[in-house]
Amino acid sequence: MSWLPSLKTETPEAGFELALKLARMAVKYTQPDESVRKDLREQYANNADSLTMASHVVATNFQTIAAANHYWNTTE
Amino acid sequence: MSWLPSLKTETPEAGFELALKLARMAVKYTQPDESVRKDLREQYANNADSLTMASHVVATNFQTIAAANHYWNTTE
Amino acid sequence: MSWLPSLKTETPEAGFELALKLARMAVKYTQPDESVRKDLREQYANNADSLTMASHVVATNFQTIAAANHYWNTTE
Amino acid sequence: MSWLPSLKTETPEAGFELALKLARMAVKYTQPDESVRKDLREQYANNADSLTMASHVVATNFQTIAAANHYWNTTE
Amino acid sequence: MSWLPSLKTETPEAGFELALKLARMAVKYTQPDESVRKDLREQYANNADSLTMASHVVATNFQTIAAANHYWNTTE
Amino acid sequence: MSWLPSLKTETPEAGFELALKLARMAVKYTQPDESVRKDLREQYANNADSLTMASHVVATNFQTIAAANHYWNTTE
Repeated sequence: MSWLPSLKTETPEAGFELALKLARMAVKYTQPDESVRKDLREQYANNADSLTMASHVVATNFQTIAAANHYWNTTE
Repeated sequence: MSWLPSLKTETPEAGFELALKLARMAVKYTQPDESVRKDLREQYANNADSLTMASHVVATNFQTIAAANHYWNTTE
Repeated sequence: MSWLPSLKTETPEAGFELALKLARMAVKYTQPDESVRKDLREQYANNADSLTMASHVVATNFQTIAAANHYWNTTE
Repeated sequence: MSWLPSLKTETPEAGFELALKLARMAVKYTQPDESVRKDLREQYANNADSLTMASHVVATNFQTIAAANHYWNTTE
Repeated sequence: MSWLPSLKTETPEAGFELALKLARMAVKYTQPDESVRKDLREQYANNADSLTMASHVVATNFQTIAAANHYWNTTE
Repeated sequence: MSWLPSLKTETPEAGFELALKLARMAVKYTQPDESVRKDLREQYANNADSLTMASHVVATNFQTIAAANHYWNTTE
């Protein structure tokens, strides 16, 4: 089973959560060790700039997801 | 109730505020603890580079929101 | 009166200045205190990397503004 | 044989892995020494901000790959 | 006379130079003092990461300029 | 002879190398001194974050190049 079968989501909110998932998966590919990632999470979740950087990655991924879903303009 | 029912906004200004909301929600997903976020806000709201980084995230999200709203070109 | 009634501008130069305005407004939403922002301005206006970071935010916003204005291709 | 014969992939997941590959190849072009890259990998794989930065590069490359594959919208 | 009468350029190379100009103009708007900018230039022109950051801003502006010029695809 | 006569390349790989060239040329415009650039290269080629930052610039330029080449979709 693929972790990314499609970029389509039912709603914008689900699309935003998929953008978060993409951001985390890129980290997982680079650092596969779950325990290391958990330790690092402790660090960056308590640092303002780290959180802003993470938010930027999500924003970049959300651009992709939103475009893939035609911005969820269902009535156009 | 979804926190993001749609990317559509009535006006560019409302779209910009939605871009700010997206930036903050990404942080909230990563750091759900309200009190921690409040402490961190104190830090980055008084640091020039932190504010510039935050502005960059908003700019990235605003690209998405503006595209979703066809740049609010209502008369085209 | 909205601070952002439209993304349309008469000229590319006015569009660039609107991109600067968007960058500053995102900061203003996060740090509403005028006197704090003035102090921080002193800092980042004298630091090369801070200025480059600010220029990056403007560049990102200018992408949005330029697209909204069809790149000011008035004769196409 | 080219390391990048095409931007097309069968699935979104394969596209994401190609985005990771592009991120690494850019590093390889700049630092061709395999042993140096291995040492550096040790560093950034254990630093939260380094991983976030790497995730941002992947997100940027994934935008390109996703667009090249029409977001894998096979039924449109 | 406007410093940015148009985003159109004759050639890709001229477009790249316009992207450089946009990057510098954003700095100039924020730090209008010529002598300060000259001092700062000394710093960042001798720092690898500063130069990479500046190159990123140019890349972002070049995306805008290239799109405005339809990627200079004159024979399409 | 222009160093950038066109954004068109025969293959995706050649496009990626052009993206690398754009990243380096932006640095060259800012720091024209070959020997300084060579010294700086020594530094950033041995620093993980510097390499990631450089990879990000390449990714941004590759977006432009790929779009200019219609993602090399020759059979569409």
